[in-house]
Amino acid sequence: MLWIVDADYSDTDHAHAIVHLLDSYASDPMGGHSTLSDFVKDNLVSELAKRNTVHVILAFDEETPVGMIVSIEGFSTF
Amino acid sequence: MLWIVDADYSDTDHAHAIVHLLDSYASDPMGGHSTLSDFVKDNLVSELAKRNTVHVILAFDEETPVGMIVSIEGFSTF
Repeated sequence: MLWIVDADYSDTDHAHAIVHLLDSYASDPMGGHSTLSDFVKDNLVSELAKRNTVHVILAFDEETPVGMIVSIEGFSTF
Repeated sequence: MLWIVDADYSDTDHAHAIVHLLDSYASDPMGGHSTLSDFVKDNLVSELAKRNTVHVILAFDEETPVGMIVSIEGFSTF
């Protein structure tokens, strides 16, 4: 069964899913053909968690992470 | 004397300064030649305050607001 959920950064499975999915994207030719740096792997989730203008949604097929949206709000003063 | 300060959204003088300075900018031909809408005037400061990725710095000449930076963080996942 496919299920879609707001990412909970304190949930280890979600945190691993975020890094895994982003690493898969970055490793693909479309994403730059290079794995994530250790710095990104180590800090991404905690840095996302600090920002209340970021919203991450995850998709799982049973226990397997299969999709993700990282949305970062744009804001204009007028 | 010129003084520069991190904006405190709960300070009425700072809140008025933000709206006044942005309205002055918007009213100038460079800023679009149109005053701020009432919606922006009413909601801008409270909306800035909600976002921890926004940082506003004000400059005053004695009691007169004379300058402002509204900085909105950009964030890249990798």
